[in-house]
Order: sequence, then structure tokens, then C-alpha cells
Amino acid sequence: MSTLVDLYPSRIAPSPSLSPRRDPVLHDPAGVETRGPLSRDALLEFERDGFVVLDDLFSPGEMAACLDELGALGRDEAVRASEEAITEPDSGALRSLFAVHRTSEIFADLAEDPRLVEVAHQVLASDVYIHQSRVNLKPALHGQPFFWHSDFETWHVEDGMPRMRAVSASVALTDNTEFNGPLMLVPGSHHSFVSCVGETPDDHYRSSLKRQEIGTPDPESLRTLVERGGIVAPKAKAGSVVLFGCNTMHASGVNLAPYPRSNAFFVYNSVENRVGEPFGPARPRPEFLASRSTITPLG
Amino acid sequence: MSTLVDLYPSRIAPSPSLSPRRDPVLHDPAGVETRGPLSRDALLEFERDGFVVLDDLFSPGEMAACLDELGALGRDEAVRASEEAITEPDSGALRSLFAVHRTSEIFADLAEDPRLVEVAHQVLASDVYIHQSRVNLKPALHGQPFFWHSDFETWHVEDGMPRMRAVSASVALTDNTEFNGPLMLVPGSHHSFVSCVGETPDDHYRSSLKRQEIGTPDPESLRTLVERGGIVAPKAKAGSVVLFGCNTMHASGVNLAPYPRSNAFFVYNSVENRVGEPFGPARPRPEFLASRSTITPLG
Repeated sequence: MSTLVDLYPSRIAPSPSLSPRRDPVLHDPAGVETRGPLSRDALLEFERDGFVVLDDLFSPGEMAACLDELGALGRDEAVRASEEAITEPDSGALRSLFAVHRTSEIFADLAEDPRLVEVAHQVLASDVYIHQSRVNLKPALHGQPFFWHSDFETWHVEDGMPRMRAVSASVALTDNTEFNGPLMLVPGSHHSFVSCVGETPDDHYRSSLKRQEIGTPDPESLRTLVERGGIVAPKAKAGSVVLFGCNTMHASGVNLAPYPRSNAFFVYNSVENRVGEPFGPARPRPEFLASRSTITPLG
Repeated sequence: MSTLVDLYPSRIAPSPSLSPRRDPVLHDPAGVETRGPLSRDALLEFERDGFVVLDDLFSPGEMAACLDELGALGRDEAVRASEEAITEPDSGALRSLFAVHRTSEIFADLAEDPRLVEVAHQVLASDVYIHQSRVNLKPALHGQPFFWHSDFETWHVEDGMPRMRAVSASVALTDNTEFNGPLMLVPGSHHSFVSCVGETPDDHYRSSLKRQEIGTPDPESLRTLVERGGIVAPKAKAGSVVLFGCNTMHASGVNLAPYPRSNAFFVYNSVENRVGEPFGPARPRPEFLASRSTITPLG
């Protein structure tokens, strides 16, 4: 267990609690005046809501190339059999592929694209590296839901990420609609930390990546957050990016549309916020879920 | 098995198919000029789309009384233990209660309310009776999805309903929002019959009411219907009614909102379309799923 002071204890106390965030949202002291690709309004929105939608950041041609690559990865038996792959219980089809920036050159290029990296620099005010990457495929008609969670809660407890100084980019490879299980977020939820209840089982990631139960907020805290901020599901078109903070509460529903929904997901962490010993279980999660030994500052 | 000619064979052929509907949508030969509570525009919409939303048909006070009754039914152990009740696997909480118009006077009054019955008369052009009734509770945060299906397909194969001459009223007891798993419909899908694949197991209703697999459309047929008509999820407020045809393809997603979503559901069938022998399995489903012996014309 970590020897650092635990600023965000979770899965320890017998009852859940909601406490104020102890880190800034924008890490440059200049705040919304920080220079970079994001406008003052976009920074303001990110600080207030915990996310901002960047429309048409990538071209249709770029997204089509990524989708081709995704198809190829899904057809690759070795990829589907790798520990980085999460497959559908029934069909064996690829559902998620972690550390995709290490498997695929095309997704490595996307992860290191200055249009994303410079945004991460602007928000986190330091060099950044990829803490986690993945592609998610929500298959047509049967794509499963993900319950509400703060990524930071898991990264803190299970990976030993000390502070809230990481940002995620969800790149829409296909259009998001009301019916295909788009990302849902609770605006303003990033200002509070929900301390969760329950002990982390060994190798929790093996089950939690399919269906998370430990490390999810209690109904009362969630209700409080939704009463304050509501719920938003951006209908981001292919090529758009939802940039959201590591502590923004989010979820997604089922895909009931007859078309797959796919996105790429990159987590940029500050080099000053590298993961250490987990605050929860003794054993950290594998490298493909949380970069620990291979830290390469980007850009 | 039924001795009638089977106009809508399903679960018989080895591959699925999409065929034209062989019954009118509006049964009075006067069509959209038929007199009654629905306007010409509403009838036109119902004929074209297979559904129409009737806003504010019931008052907030009426819906509050129904919600109170629903709470009382959910707390009643005998109700939860009855065969008409579907309960949550984890908590034992009430999820659906069938034949609610026989258990509860308040819901019997709602089912027989002239604001609903006269609409059914207008569309079906005959006396009507309640083929099925139920209340559905989609619990906060964990309400489960229902996959796409045409009710008629099941009622025809498993209950022996001969023709498409029934109409359903989904009464919103709580507001429907984008996030609480509202009813989703495919406009225009009622003009086609999707013949499904797979043999009906004995006592299929015991599993199909929790998760339906047999009697659901194949992906290709569903894609065709959605390409033609799209998907719509009416955000019906409490007190509103979604009136939809027995063959309109519909589904619903998860409830990820921190509030329950509840509705009452009444199926009005023409007395000239009473159920007979099932077209599929030898044994019909129980009375609480399909009125067979107790036919009381309404209104």
C-alpha cells in the first residue's frame, strides 16, 4: 500500500461520503487565460462542467482510417486472444482493446496527435504521458451499458494515481446518437469526490472491466450530484472529441441501434502525477491498464 | 395448435423474413375520418407511424394516486409472491405486475377510463376488452433494458391472437427522459411483419418476461426497418399516453437516472379478434398474460 498521504480515501470507510475536490481543475495558475488550442470559453466550460466537446477535431478521412484499423484488429485472432482484449461472452467479438497505442501504429499516431496532446498540456500545465489507452466497440443491438463511475477513483485506489491531474479524450470514431449508448456525464460532478464502499478483490480488473460493482458511487451521492448538475449525453459526431476530467462522473447505456458505436479513449496524465503504490490493494494492476514503467512524455 | 389459417407464420421457417401487414391499421372503413376523441391528424399519425403521443391525457393528481397505489402494491408481500409479479433478481423488488386491473381497483379504473377506451374504439372500430394489463417499474440506476420486439408476434404465436387488431396504451406515471430508459419505437415498422426464427420453449413466458430471445427480430430485418423509419423515443411527461399498434417494433434501454421510471400498460383487443389456440406451442400462456376466459367488453 502507498506510503503517501491519501488525499482521496475510498473503499476504506464503512459508509460512502461526498467530499470537495482538493486539486484544481485547470492546473496552470493562469486558469482560463492559459494559452493553447482551447479557447477561453472552452476552458471555462471544462472548469465548470468537468468536460467540453471539441467538434470536428478530426476529419472524416482520419476517422475512416481508424475504423479500418479497428476492423483489422477485430479480425486478428492473436489480438482477440491477448490479455489486452475484452471480448463478448457470446460471440467472442472484440469489445475493448487496451494499450491500443502499443499495438497499433495508427492509434499510436492518434494518441500522440498534437491536437490532443496540446490540449492536455494546456489543461494539466506540464508534460504528459499516456496513462491508459483503449478502443471501445459497442456492437449493434447488444452493446452493454457501463454503470456510473469516476475513473479517478479506480486509478487512485487500484493504480496509485496520487492527484486529480489527468484528462481523458474520447474520440468518436462513429456518430454518437441518443440510441447507441453514448457517453453520459454529470456536469459539475468533478468538483466532488465520492468515497466508495467495499473491499477491492484481488485482480479486480478481470471482472470490473466487464461489469463494475466495487468502486461505483452509492445511489444517494449520485442523486445529489445529478440534482446539482443533471445529466448530459453529447451527440458527438464522428471526428469529435469529448474531453473530460479524470473525476467526472460518467456512464453509458446500451446500444439498441442496428449499427456499432466505436470510440478511442486516451488518458493523459501529468508527469508530475505518475502512479505509485496503489492506495488500495497490495498488487497494482497490469501495465496495459496503467502505464507504470514506460513513461514517455509526449509532444 | 390453431386450426385457423395462419396469416402471420413465425418461429416456423428456418430463416427470418419481412412481409407486408395483412390487416388495416385503422379498422373503421372511414379511416382518418372516424369520429372519436382522436383528431384527424392524430389518426393520420397513428396510421403512418404506428403510434401517437397523447399529451396530458391524465392530470398530475390522477398520476400521483396511481403512483401511491403502485408503492402499496410493491410493499405488499403477497403481491410480490404472486405469479403475476416479476421481481428483481437481486433485491426482490417489484419490477412488473401483470393483470393489474384485476388486483387493483385504481388501475382497473384507469384501464376502463373512457379517455383510453374510446380511443381504442375509434382505432379498432368494435367493442374492446383488455387482453393484457401490467405496471412496469424501471428502478433507479439499475432498470434493465428490453430488446426490440413486436408484441403481436408473441401474442399471435404464444396466445393465438389471429389478426393485428389490438392497440396498446402506455400511460406515463412518471416523466420519461432521455436517461431513464423510455419506450423507443421504429416509426412505420407496423406495416411489416417480421417472421422470427427459433422454436418456442415450453413455458417460454417464464424466461421471456425477464429477457426475451425467441420472438425477437433478426438484425437484418431490424436494420431494414430502422433505415426506413429511424428510431423515436417520445419524452412523454407523466400523465401522457403513448398509443401504439400491436405490431409496432419497440424496445427500451436501461434506466441510468437516479429516479425510478414507472408506467401502466393496457392492451385493448377487438372482441372480434379474441385469442384462440396458439399458432405456436400446444399450451397457451396463463390467463394473466392473455385474457381468454374472462372477456368483458368495456365502455
